[in-house]
Amino acid sequence: MIRELMPVPLVLASRNPGKLVELRRILGPGFELRALPHDAPEVDETGATFEENALLKARSAAAATGLAAVADDSGLAVDALNGMPGVLSARWSGAHGDDEANLRLVLGQVSGVPDERLGAAFVCAAAVATPDGSEQVVRGEVRGRLVRERRGEHGFGYDPIFVPEGESHTTAEMEPAEKDAISHRGRAFRALADVLPGLIA
Amino acid sequence: MIRELMPVPLVLASRNPGKLVELRRILGPGFELRALPHDAPEVDETGATFEENALLKARSAAAATGLAAVADDSGLAVDALNGMPGVLSARWSGAHGDDEANLRLVLGQVSGVPDERLGAAFVCAAAVATPDGSEQVVRGEVRGRLVRERRGEHGFGYDPIFVPEGESHTTAEMEPAEKDAISHRGRAFRALADVLPGLIA
Repeated sequence: MIRELMPVPLVLASRNPGKLVELRRILGPGFELRALPHDAPEVDETGATFEENALLKARSAAAATGLAAVADDSGLAVDALNGMPGVLSARWSGAHGDDEANLRLVLGQVSGVPDERLGAAFVCAAAVATPDGSEQVVRGEVRGRLVRERRGEHGFGYDPIFVPEGESHTTAEMEPAEKDAISHRGRAFRALADVLPGLIA
Repeated sequence: MIRELMPVPLVLASRNPGKLVELRRILGPGFELRALPHDAPEVDETGATFEENALLKARSAAAATGLAAVADDSGLAVDALNGMPGVLSARWSGAHGDDEANLRLVLGQVSGVPDERLGAAFVCAAAVATPDGSEQVVRGEVRGRLVRERRGEHGFGYDPIFVPEGESHTTAEMEPAEKDAISHRGRAFRALADVLPGLIA
């Protein structure tokens, strides 16, 4: 019974401080989400799918820390690009993590694509892996469409050019709580939070 | 009977002089392939498929010239990019026709992709349209794999990084006749040449 009152310790397999803040918010007070130790090994994200990459990162962090580890792999799937940038979202322009170059490249690539074919989705695979080899991965998605000019200052990555279905604002124009409620990452990690207690108890 | 001895006049719906040379070679002496007049309208290549774009170009050139027109739309389909750059091959980096930037971008995008997932195909849709509204489109493909460093000086576009199945050289290392024998464009236009006489007689 005492277990249920103590936050469950988890390590986040990511070096992105923004993601730590976002996932602490999404997972809530039932979990104690810890940053990845600096000496944890780098993981090559060589998977062909979001799910494979999320599992690669979670397994590596669980092995390095001896704690249950959660990880996500997320990206933008543009219909007119056959679902790409997909798993390559963070390095679409060739250099890893250059949000501005990646966003500008996608806008250039769809510049000749008619407005009615600007459908896209944000996709997130959320994985958990434990030191004893248990693991699970779930997917969250939000459909929407691209806009040709960036709007908004929140978020990161492709947020300034993505408008979720039924919304008029880009995800970069939304307040964090508003975005969490509908976002791919919010959906994936809320689903993961449901299965976590059974997996790591 | 005299018709069969006279080369059939056709206009090529392309402003690429290299393509005119290549297609004259592939179609052979039975056809008199003419360059597109300078005052023919520009065509927005807004199709979602190679076939749609080839037909858009052929129809426009037939309407502008009053001659049967042939066109192709070709590109590189990389497995690890879900078949992209595809119809966006010529403008993958955002700027149209910058072969060097496009090739460099693809190499950057697959830099983290394992060698065993570097499969790709060159794809060509070849279309014919006549002023009276007849039209046909056929597809040619050659499967192969990408190499991470460019090799060869022939051809254009992605030729320096594509090795066809069963070959050890890139298509940029092949002599023109050797490349025509196996290339996507060679296959598509030989298939088109078979149906042309029936369509434009």
